[in-house]
Amino acid sequence: MLTFYYDIMSQPSRAIFQFLKANNIVYKDHPVAIRKGEHKSEWFLKINPMGKLPAINDNGFILTESVAILKYLAVRYVVPDHWYPSDLRLRARVDEYMAWQHMNTRFNAAGLFWKEFMVPQMTGQPLDKATLDKAESELNATLDMLQKMFLKDQPFLCGDNITIADLLAINELMQCLASGRDVTKGRPKLRAWMDRVREKLQPHFDKSVAMLYKLRDMSNSRQQARL
Amino acid sequence: MLTFYYDIMSQPSRAIFQFLKANNIVYKDHPVAIRKGEHKSEWFLKINPMGKLPAINDNGFILTESVAILKYLAVRYVVPDHWYPSDLRLRARVDEYMAWQHMNTRFNAAGLFWKEFMVPQMTGQPLDKATLDKAESELNATLDMLQKMFLKDQPFLCGDNITIADLLAINELMQCLASGRDVTKGRPKLRAWMDRVREKLQPHFDKSVAMLYKLRDMSNSRQQARL
Ligand SMILES: N[C@@H](CCC(=O)N[C@@H](CS)C(=O)NCC(=O)O)C(=O)O
Ligand SMILES: N[C@@H](CCC(=O)N[C@@H](CS)C(=O)NCC(=O)O)C(=O)O
Repeated sequence: MLTFYYDIMSQPSRAIFQFLKANNIVYKDHPVAIRKGEHKSEWFLKINPMGKLPAINDNGFILTESVAILKYLAVRYVVPDHWYPSDLRLRARVDEYMAWQHMNTRFNAAGLFWKEFMVPQMTGQPLDKATLDKAESELNATLDMLQKMFLKDQPFLCGDNITIADLLAINELMQCLASGRDVTKGRPKLRAWMDRVREKLQPHFDKSVAMLYKLRDMSNSRQQARL
Repeated sequence: MLTFYYDIMSQPSRAIFQFLKANNIVYKDHPVAIRKGEHKSEWFLKINPMGKLPAINDNGFILTESVAILKYLAVRYVVPDHWYPSDLRLRARVDEYMAWQHMNTRFNAAGLFWKEFMVPQMTGQPLDKATLDKAESELNATLDMLQKMFLKDQPFLCGDNITIADLLAINELMQCLASGRDVTKGRPKLRAWMDRVREKLQPHFDKSVAMLYKLRDMSNSRQQARL
């Protein structure tokens, strides 16, 4: 049996959730609530000593790191080849994105989410403008590079069809909705890509980001109220 | 023809250099000198818009990111299976390390190298002690985790034989030699692992780190002189 440990508010957790659902893979659902500190509990540290989500346990084989988990699942189960192409060059492009994203998409999108959403939640104060501006411009540089190196004029990040790279990317980028930020603003190609990825993952996609949509709406109403 | 763009002082570049040599893969050697800014030149930005090394060009197929390149080479060429095992679980463990290392081994070892070696080179002043102490304790936490999650009591990081994960790890960790720092001090298992990896990669390993050894010796003499 495959057990899936995740928090639906975690970006890499959602990527795996969406992959499991899109491919009708049967698994034992094991939510671990970060907001309750469950990821640092003794039992979970035995699963992942890093105390981070997601993780899986496949008949005793424990695996962490979303990139490794997605690749493992794509080979372990019978899923359409497009998710993680067996063609050497197509696969290398997916691997390239998944290596690149750690210090780029994830680093800068999660960084901005943290500074713009989490810090004010925890302190009751917005972060200073200079720090936010810097984080915003770093994310913008990353988005420019994402479009230049990967998306280009393709329908999906690594070519003609959806891959596990798209899953990781969309979830990092959508996290910024929590503070009402739409990273596709002024980026029609990125917007169209996001719509295509979302479409491929319905109906489970919207379910998995329901909380993000709620936070976005709350943030937008607060901004409305301030005008 | 395979062209290999690299700077031998770059950790991920060395990992690929050692892999190519260990497997007698024929390639066109194309050093790109970071210290001369060649990685930001117009022609190289066409190869890698990030302006980073390493990169390869295999008959027109350009690939960046050391993790993706190592995996590509291990499949593209006929190399022993142990480098990147075809067994699903063994491979997943290698993938797990290679995903993990971005924000851990590389982040903290390269971070300390930068603070302890590069900053003084550029400013003529050592970095303040508090910043250095923090970087050192972060690297120590990473080394603890590396031993706990991966090395354990195994001969190599991901099991009984050397894999591409070991190549990435040893080069990040040895980079700290530039400032005379031996990260295996007080860590006999890590030391024994490093010796095993080095042994497997001779005679090319020592050639590829010759400059690091020289910097280490210079640093040690300076420290001797101060005593
Ligand atoms: N590189 C890891 C990152 C995992 C990670 O950072 N997870 C976050 C949630 S998105 C977490 O568990 N954070 C809790 C903590 O670090 O305390 C992956 O891709 O799986
Ligand atoms: N994630 C990349 C990292 C590449 C990287 O950061 N390379 C460094 C040398 S170790 C570089 O080219 N730095 C020059 C710069 O960023 O200006 C990989 O694994 O290939």
